[in-house]
Amino acid sequence: MTEIVTAGILVIGDEILSGRTKDKNIGFIAEYLTNIGIDLKEVRVVADDEIAIIEALNELRRRYTYVFTTGGIGPTHDDITADSIAKAFGVGIGHHPDVVARFRARFSDAELNEARLRMARIPDGAELIESATILAPGFKIENVVVMAGVPSIMQAMMDIVSPRLKSGVRMLSESVKAQAREGDIGGPLRAIAETHPDTSIGSYPSLDENGVPVTSIVVRSRDADRLRAAMTAVEAMLADVKVAGR
Amino acid sequence: MTEIVTAGILVIGDEILSGRTKDKNIGFIAEYLTNIGIDLKEVRVVADDEIAIIEALNELRRRYTYVFTTGGIGPTHDDITADSIAKAFGVGIGHHPDVVARFRARFSDAELNEARLRMARIPDGAELIESATILAPGFKIENVVVMAGVPSIMQAMMDIVSPRLKSGVRMLSESVKAQAREGDIGGPLRAIAETHPDTSIGSYPSLDENGVPVTSIVVRSRDADRLRAAMTAVEAMLADVKVAGR
Repeated sequence: MTEIVTAGILVIGDEILSGRTKDKNIGFIAEYLTNIGIDLKEVRVVADDEIAIIEALNELRRRYTYVFTTGGIGPTHDDITADSIAKAFGVGIGHHPDVVARFRARFSDAELNEARLRMARIPDGAELIESATILAPGFKIENVVVMAGVPSIMQAMMDIVSPRLKSGVRMLSESVKAQAREGDIGGPLRAIAETHPDTSIGSYPSLDENGVPVTSIVVRSRDADRLRAAMTAVEAMLADVKVAGR
Repeated sequence: MTEIVTAGILVIGDEILSGRTKDKNIGFIAEYLTNIGIDLKEVRVVADDEIAIIEALNELRRRYTYVFTTGGIGPTHDDITADSIAKAFGVGIGHHPDVVARFRARFSDAELNEARLRMARIPDGAELIESATILAPGFKIENVVVMAGVPSIMQAMMDIVSPRLKSGVRMLSESVKAQAREGDIGGPLRAIAETHPDTSIGSYPSLDENGVPVTSIVVRSRDADRLRAAMTAVEAMLADVKVAGR
């Protein structure tokens, strides 16, 4: 019941590291996992480099319940994710008959070239993540979920794979925007954090639309009562600060 | 002359892993480093967790010329970056006299509370990354550059610190948008990649404004002549595809 399910994300792609493409997948997956009760613990971004992919994947898959990868499953020479993952698991890789059959129905013989067939390469023992609208399928092998880098396709794959994942007790959260500078409430906020151990309290400064400093306080807990108790303490503290300071 | 200067990024923050805040710093720093001739090799995102920060930092700082961190240098209890970095380096940490002096000039005694003084905690031996408009300074200790998580402040800190960094031979790049599906050009593109070893050729599919599949091909090299030769081969290949396919 109280099992904690954890995850890591491995983003694969030279284009993210060069800054040419701005990643949109980390934030989406992070929010998605939070919503289904999976704790994202770590993200790594590596190049289209077999050694880097294998090393990062092996560390993450041993450490967390699940690993989600994005990128590198297309038809060109720089798409090396499937092969790297097969090597990381020490399994073979070949053209998956179901994917080849679907490609044969869709492409002419001339179109079904070696590049396109590359998208049918799936590590032995993996289950497909596919739908009628997805060309190159993703796959799940043991605790690793391999998805496309194109955000719309990755998002469709998350929807397909998520019912197959176990999820834990969802992290609950409440937030309040304080009309206060972070430096003015840091002391009392620390005291609240220390007296509410089963909660996690984050503090995020920003400027409101008039350029006045405000602070978002986010309280998180898996226990609704403890969350409420900590939030009540935060609200009482903020009311005191308001009386004293303004 | 031909030294390769490398970097890793360490993003620190629960709010990124929960999906509440969408990171905007990775893409900015990636592009910035590419422009000054530093190769970004890896990115990691970890929680506001001392052990996770220290472990990731120690791996990255041993592996790359520089490490850039973002987040966790504010005044609240969840801002543990400076202390974690001091521990990672095995050095002491205390209130930096220059920062305290600046705070004394800016804040009243009542305002200069323990929380605000926390922002003056700088590991021994670190040099400040500061300006008149930055409240909590960043710092550089050995090959690690520690910056704010708020994008506008982080960006100002990059401008301040970058003249202190050594930079390598800049990676040059050219790109062309092909009116072709990735699967149609994957074969010839692989052949070009194999015959142009000192270049890196990436292929990125997308849909144009009419929903027609197009492919961006990006060629990168530190050598201008080799870049041009590879790009010429790509352009010739694309002209052939156009004649044959349409």
